[in-house]
Amino acid sequence: MAVGSSDIGALHPIAGIRLGVAAAGIRKSGRDDLTLIELAPGTTTAAVFTRNRFRAAPVQVAERHLALTTPRYCVINTGNANAGTGERGLADAIATCEAMAAIADVSAAEVLPYSTGVIGEFLAMQRLLDGLPAAYAALADDAWLRSAGAIMTTDTRPKASSTRFSCGAGDVCITGIAKGAGMIRPDMATMLAYIGTDIAIEGALLQQALSVAVDASFNRITIDGDTSTNDAVTLFATGRVGDAPISDPASAEFVQFCAELTEVCQLLAQAVVRDGEGATKFVTVRVEGGNDPGECLQTAYAIAESPLVKTALFASDPNWGRILAAVGRAGVPDLAVDNVRIWLGDLLLAENAGRAAGYSESAAQRLMSADEIVITVNLGRGESVETVWTTDLSYDYVRINAEYRT
Amino acid sequence: MAVGSSDIGALHPIAGIRLGVAAAGIRKSGRDDLTLIELAPGTTTAAVFTRNRFRAAPVQVAERHLALTTPRYCVINTGNANAGTGERGLADAIATCEAMAAIADVSAAEVLPYSTGVIGEFLAMQRLLDGLPAAYAALADDAWLRSAGAIMTTDTRPKASSTRFSCGAGDVCITGIAKGAGMIRPDMATMLAYIGTDIAIEGALLQQALSVAVDASFNRITIDGDTSTNDAVTLFATGRVGDAPISDPASAEFVQFCAELTEVCQLLAQAVVRDGEGATKFVTVRVEGGNDPGECLQTAYAIAESPLVKTALFASDPNWGRILAAVGRAGVPDLAVDNVRIWLGDLLLAENAGRAAGYSESAAQRLMSADEIVITVNLGRGESVETVWTTDLSYDYVRINAEYRT
Repeated sequence: MAVGSSDIGALHPIAGIRLGVAAAGIRKSGRDDLTLIELAPGTTTAAVFTRNRFRAAPVQVAERHLALTTPRYCVINTGNANAGTGERGLADAIATCEAMAAIADVSAAEVLPYSTGVIGEFLAMQRLLDGLPAAYAALADDAWLRSAGAIMTTDTRPKASSTRFSCGAGDVCITGIAKGAGMIRPDMATMLAYIGTDIAIEGALLQQALSVAVDASFNRITIDGDTSTNDAVTLFATGRVGDAPISDPASAEFVQFCAELTEVCQLLAQAVVRDGEGATKFVTVRVEGGNDPGECLQTAYAIAESPLVKTALFASDPNWGRILAAVGRAGVPDLAVDNVRIWLGDLLLAENAGRAAGYSESAAQRLMSADEIVITVNLGRGESVETVWTTDLSYDYVRINAEYRT
Repeated sequence: MAVGSSDIGALHPIAGIRLGVAAAGIRKSGRDDLTLIELAPGTTTAAVFTRNRFRAAPVQVAERHLALTTPRYCVINTGNANAGTGERGLADAIATCEAMAAIADVSAAEVLPYSTGVIGEFLAMQRLLDGLPAAYAALADDAWLRSAGAIMTTDTRPKASSTRFSCGAGDVCITGIAKGAGMIRPDMATMLAYIGTDIAIEGALLQQALSVAVDASFNRITIDGDTSTNDAVTLFATGRVGDAPISDPASAEFVQFCAELTEVCQLLAQAVVRDGEGATKFVTVRVEGGNDPGECLQTAYAIAESPLVKTALFASDPNWGRILAAVGRAGVPDLAVDNVRIWLGDLLLAENAGRAAGYSESAAQRLMSADEIVITVNLGRGESVETVWTTDLSYDYVRINAEYRT
């Protein structure tokens, strides 16, 4: 089950990027599970990776390769995360890059490996290597949607977003895909997203744009509070649009590019939440009136990750006392609870440390029964605002994660 | 469902303490839901309360009364937390104390009110007041077990613990009761525990003993990470045993009393976890080898509150990659993951950032199938050790909390 429309709309191809998919039998036989992304020479790449201290082998290798040279290929397998696999895992990630390099006649450092799936088991290397030629032969510029399907694990539907806009540089396209449905509390990035654009832009500015966009999108979602070992968001700019690369962070082109990129990333991040494991609700938690962004985020995550709030959401039960309790334990220093106000949609639930005068159980019940729910908290002490997106906690979340390895 | 034996054993009466119970119809008709505790004159009381910023009305009133004088009565209702109830909630808590004071001919400040149940609804005051005389008439020194039942909410069984020991002061008894099964991540205390002892001890030392004991018991458990608005642990010393009150914190009597009290509190705290909402496992998470207690606790709670670890526990699935991922995201600064080791019972699961050489899936499977599970993590960087107790996350947790108000 997933929340909201599954309509993705048109995905604009990105000149200079081709994608190829194969069913290598790594996850289940007959299902796409191996994806290649080919980047034309001259493509600039920016990336952010998980801050989990146990970083998966492919994350370690990708970071190393990015420091050495400019990538030409990404190899992505689903079904196995190659995380918690020690030295052998590192060797497997390197061997993957070497095999791809031999096929495409590039250096191994020009290949970035990515893995997603179960943690702590070794990759089925022979299957992966045997699948590479088929994925390579399938490379095409219109395979974004099929690739979005091929990188899925417990996802129930592919996640992709695309936009096209005009700026001083010309007509620019941005297209991205993402996967993820559980182990989602990104701390720098979420589990695997790939975004391409044809704009010409300097590497440092591309990284800056990605940081801004990720911070307002993938770093604002949580399904279960568990930060993955494999999180990675990678952004490619093929440089086909624009006379010269954007190099001025104050330019109108850069500001507009950041805004458009942020919107694409937010749609992808929200798509991850909408497809959250067992999700029946898409929940926006907005905390305003804080002294700084940190205490707004702290409060938003305390609500978004409270099992009691999440089970009430699942039950469509306007049990606002649980939201109030989560705000109270969020650790905001010297919070004056009499100044806190809590809304469900437009309905004021709580003020003066108690139920709001105009509260109506039937109105609250109606709002809680919707698929899309907005919880707003005003801490009543400052000007900061932060928004986090999350899901409810259902029987299906327990079922999916209890049965994951069986 | 609850984990482990429900055998409580003998509960020693405490000279100077009587308890009385009534079915006042506050929660459900015909079920004990109102409890009185009577303290003989001269009883010394120590208490710790929740650090949730939204403290329930009875918590606020009890703290105020404790600062004014020495308590003679506690009034405890279940079925309603009187939290998130603003000014009217405070007035209701005060009215409860005044009614009790009139019945027993004491001052209102000599009464401590306590409430547990749903947050955000007003107390059924008339029923509560109407029930007080019956509870008062029922006062007896052997009603500890019945009181343990009367303070339950979603608990499936009463929780009580009692010990008797000899020390320089004489033969001392300690008897305690507790309730709690959800919204359990005590930050100072857990949801309602009452402990009596007949020892003679000065007030400051009694408070010190309680802090030591609570820190090693109620402050080391979590079911869902949600700190309640009503947490309170209260300890009464009636002063019947000993020639003079203990006044030396270095005395053998005090050290022994602290140790015995800690054991009673640990048994009560563990009983809360064993009866955790939907619990099918009792899980001990021990983190050793940390630089300080803080990073051990951080790591232990990251594991104990991870929905992915908890659903794997429910499924008896030795998915140790989820434990490793939780350790990695716990926020321990500069953690060298190669030095981290993880055990299930006596079985080494992970070392050198990967699966341990001697790992056996069948052995791990057997250990995970037990009702009682011990997870040990060595951070490999210091001497600190901390232990936290928790449960799994089951369908029943979702059911209980989705249906709580219906």
